[in-house]
Amino acid sequence: MDVLLKEILEIKSVSGDESKISSFLLDFILKRRSSWKVSPEIYSGEEFHDNILLVFGKPKTAAFAHMDTVGFTSRYENQLVPVGGPEIGDGVWLQGSDQVGPIRCMAYEKDGNIFHDFPRGIQRGTLLSFEQRIISDNEMLQAAYLDNRLGMYALLKACEDLTDGIIVFSTYEEHGGGAMPFLVRFIYENWGIKNGLVADVTWITDGIHFNKGPVVSLRDSFIPRKKFLERILETADASGVPYQMEVEAHGGSDGREIQLSPYPIDWCFIGIAEENPHTPYEKASLADLADMIKLYRYLMQNL
Amino acid sequence: MDVLLKEILEIKSVSGDESKISSFLLDFILKRRSSWKVSPEIYSGEEFHDNILLVFGKPKTAAFAHMDTVGFTSRYENQLVPVGGPEIGDGVWLQGSDQVGPIRCMAYEKDGNIFHDFPRGIQRGTLLSFEQRIISDNEMLQAAYLDNRLGMYALLKACEDLTDGIIVFSTYEEHGGGAMPFLVRFIYENWGIKNGLVADVTWITDGIHFNKGPVVSLRDSFIPRKKFLERILETADASGVPYQMEVEAHGGSDGREIQLSPYPIDWCFIGIAEENPHTPYEKASLADLADMIKLYRYLMQNL
Amino acid sequence: MDVLLKEILEIKSVSGDESKISSFLLDFILKRRSSWKVSPEIYSGEEFHDNILLVFGKPKTAAFAHMDTVGFTSRYENQLVPVGGPEIGDGVWLQGSDQVGPIRCMAYEKDGNIFHDFPRGIQRGTLLSFEQRIISDNEMLQAAYLDNRLGMYALLKACEDLTDGIIVFSTYEEHGGGAMPFLVRFIYENWGIKNGLVADVTWITDGIHFNKGPVVSLRDSFIPRKKFLERILETADASGVPYQMEVEAHGGSDGREIQLSPYPIDWCFIGIAEENPHTPYEKASLADLADMIKLYRYLMQNL
Repeated sequence: MDVLLKEILEIKSVSGDESKISSFLLDFILKRRSSWKVSPEIYSGEEFHDNILLVFGKPKTAAFAHMDTVGFTSRYENQLVPVGGPEIGDGVWLQGSDQVGPIRCMAYEKDGNIFHDFPRGIQRGTLLSFEQRIISDNEMLQAAYLDNRLGMYALLKACEDLTDGIIVFSTYEEHGGGAMPFLVRFIYENWGIKNGLVADVTWITDGIHFNKGPVVSLRDSFIPRKKFLERILETADASGVPYQMEVEAHGGSDGREIQLSPYPIDWCFIGIAEENPHTPYEKASLADLADMIKLYRYLMQNL
Repeated sequence: MDVLLKEILEIKSVSGDESKISSFLLDFILKRRSSWKVSPEIYSGEEFHDNILLVFGKPKTAAFAHMDTVGFTSRYENQLVPVGGPEIGDGVWLQGSDQVGPIRCMAYEKDGNIFHDFPRGIQRGTLLSFEQRIISDNEMLQAAYLDNRLGMYALLKACEDLTDGIIVFSTYEEHGGGAMPFLVRFIYENWGIKNGLVADVTWITDGIHFNKGPVVSLRDSFIPRKKFLERILETADASGVPYQMEVEAHGGSDGREIQLSPYPIDWCFIGIAEENPHTPYEKASLADLADMIKLYRYLMQNL
Repeated sequence: MDVLLKEILEIKSVSGDESKISSFLLDFILKRRSSWKVSPEIYSGEEFHDNILLVFGKPKTAAFAHMDTVGFTSRYENQLVPVGGPEIGDGVWLQGSDQVGPIRCMAYEKDGNIFHDFPRGIQRGTLLSFEQRIISDNEMLQAAYLDNRLGMYALLKACEDLTDGIIVFSTYEEHGGGAMPFLVRFIYENWGIKNGLVADVTWITDGIHFNKGPVVSLRDSFIPRKKFLERILETADASGVPYQMEVEAHGGSDGREIQLSPYPIDWCFIGIAEENPHTPYEKASLADLADMIKLYRYLMQNL
C-alpha cells in the first residue's frame, strides 16, 4: 500500500480541526512539487482557514477533495455530540486527546444520546474520532476515513502530471460546509473557472459495484446541468477508463455549494464507491482507486 | 387560447435541462422585441447557464419567472427519483426520451419508491415529465406545467410595453435553486437593482380563491420586509387591478434566494393561484392571469 | 434596572418589521456617541434594510446582535402563523395593531394550528408579539424579548469605551436570516474583518447555569474553527472575567451565516444563558449580563 495513502489515513481531522492534515499536505506538496510536470502556485495557511489551493498553468477546471472527517465533540456528563454523521453501531473505539492527556474510549448509544466510557471526564469541546485500523490486500482497502482520504489521494496523484487546472483541498464538508463559498469565489474571481469536479466517496448500491470503475454521479440531492453532464460523459468515454453512472435521490457533496454559489460554475461528482460509509470499516476497491486517478488525469486535461 | 402560451406549455424543461425552453424563449424574444415599446438588451446562453435576462431602459425593479418544471430522473431497476416535488397520485403518464428512442410510461408508487412500467429499461439519468394535456374554455385553463408557464407568460406579455425594468427567466427553482444567487449578483452589481418581484404560481386555499385576482404573498416560509410590502400594496391599490393577499407558513419561491443574497434587495411574490399543484392537472383562472399581467405592467413602471 | 434596557424591552420588532427598534437605536447612538471614548461612523437606514453598523477606529473584530424577536403573522379564519419559534404553552397574551386599531388577544393551539381569540377579524399579515411584562429584582430579570435585547444592550454598553471594532445590529435572525450575508460582505469588503463574535442568548442546560458568567459556545449545529476557539478561550482567560463553555448539537445563531459566507471570517457565539426561551417569561441573571459586557469589552480590544 502506498506510503502517502497510509500516512494520510493516520492523521485525525474532524471538521473544524483540519490544521494537522493541512500542514501535512502542505509539507508533502512543497517537497514533491519540483518532481511534478508543472510546479503549482500554492495558496494556503491561516488566511485560507486551513484550505489549500494549487494552481497549475492556465486552469479551466477545478477539482475539490475535502480533508475533514466525521467525529464527535465531548459535551457534559460523558455525552458526545456527533460531527457530521458518524455511524456507531453497537459501539466503536474512539481516540483523541485533551489537556489532561490521550484518550481512548468506546462510544455507544443509549436512549438516543451518545456516551463515552472513558474512566475520567473529558474536557468540554474535545474532538474524538474513530480509532484507525487499516486492513489491505492487493484488491481491497478497509479503514476509517477512506471518506475522503481516497479523494485527496487521487487528486495528489493527479497533480504529478497536471499541466493546467486547480486542485483544492477543502474543510468542513462533513459538517455544514462553509469553506466552499470562499474557495469558489476565490477561484472564479481570480481565474474565471467554469468547471468543477468533486472527488469524494459514495456508496455501493444496487446500481454501483466494486471494480466497475469510478462513479460519475448524474445526480444526488442536487442536480448538475444536463449539458455539462453530457460533456463529462463524452470525455470520460474518450478516456477509455471504465466508469459507472450513479443516480441518487439523497446525499450531497461539495458540489452543492458550487451549485448554490453566485457564479456560473458547472459541477459534477466523480468519486469512488465504498461500503460501510462513516464507520471505522469503510471499504473500497484499489482497482477503482487506480481508475479514478486515471479518469481525473484525463478529465483535468481534456474537459 | 393564446398561441405563445400553448407553445410554451408543450416544451419539456425538467430542472437541470432547461436548454430547450431557453432556446425557444430566446428565439421568441429576438423575433418580437422590435415590436415592443422598448427593445431590451439580452443576456443569455451557455455562459448564463440557460438563464435569460432582459434589460429595459433604466431599471429599478426586476421580475423573475422560473422556466423549469418538476419531473423524474430514471435510476436502476425501473426506479424513478423525483425532481422537485411532483405528485403522482394513483399513477400518471410520463414522457421523455433516451438514446434508444422515445418513452411513454406510467409512474406509480410502491412501498415509498416510484417505478415506471416501460417495457424496456430506461437509460440511467434520463429525465421524464408529465405528459401534457391542455384543457381550456373561456374561463379556466387546465394543464401540466402551469407552474410556471403562467409566470413566464405574464412576464413576456408585460415586456410589450415595459420601458424600464429587468425581466429574468431562471432555472432550477423547483429543485434546490442555485441559479438565483448568480442572477441576483449580476443584476445588483450591474444595475443596483433594489426591488424584486417573483412571478410564480401558488395554491387555492381557504383564503385564496379563483377569479379574485393575482395573489400578493405577505409571507410564505420566508418573510418580506414590512416596509416593502406596504409600498407594494399601496401601488397595487393605485393600479385599480383586483388582487388577493396571501399568508402562508410554508412554501417558498425564488424570493428565498433574494432574501438570502448578500445584496439589500427587497422582494415580494406576486403570482396566480391554482388547484392541483405539481400534477398534470394544474388549474387556473384566465381572468386571474389577465389581471396578473395588468398588475405586473403597473408595478414594473410605478414601484 | 437600567433605563436603556427597559426602553428597548418595550419596543416591538417581529422579524421583517425592525424599523421601530432600528430608529430608536439610531436616535440613542446619535445622542450618546459624543460621550463615548471614540465616536463611531454610522451606517444605517432604508438602504441598509434597517440594519445598523457602527465602525470604531481601525476594526479587526466585529460583534453582532440581532434586533428582531419571534412573533406571529395573522392569517385567515382567526389563524396565526409563527414568526421564528415562539412558544405558546397553554396560551399567551399577544399585542399588535392593524388599520382598525390596537389588538390584545390570547393565542392558543388547537389541532396543531394556532388561533387568536380577538373578537373581530385581524387584517391579513398583521404582526403580533408577546405582551411585555418585566419582572426584576437585584439578581434576576424576567421579561419577553430578552432574546436578544440582552445582546443588544451588552454591545451598546461595550460601545462606551471601544476604540477599535465594528458593532452590528442585525435583522431577521429569528426567521430564516438573510441580513447577515449583506452585512458580512459589507464589513469584509470595506474593512477586511476576520473575527466575528455573536452576542445573543442561549439556554440553561445540564452544563450551563445562572451566575457562572457569559457562555462561550464551542459549537451548536455549526462548528467554529478550533484554532479560533483556542484564541478566544486564551483571551477570555486573560480577561479574568468568569465564563462558561457550552457544547450543543442543535440551535444556531448569526454565526451560521458567517460560517456560510464566501469570506474567511472566523466566528464564535458569546452570549448569556436564560430559562424559558421564546416565551414571555425569559429569565436571565443580571450578574451574567454584567460579566458579558466586561468580556465583550476585553475581547473587542484584545483579540
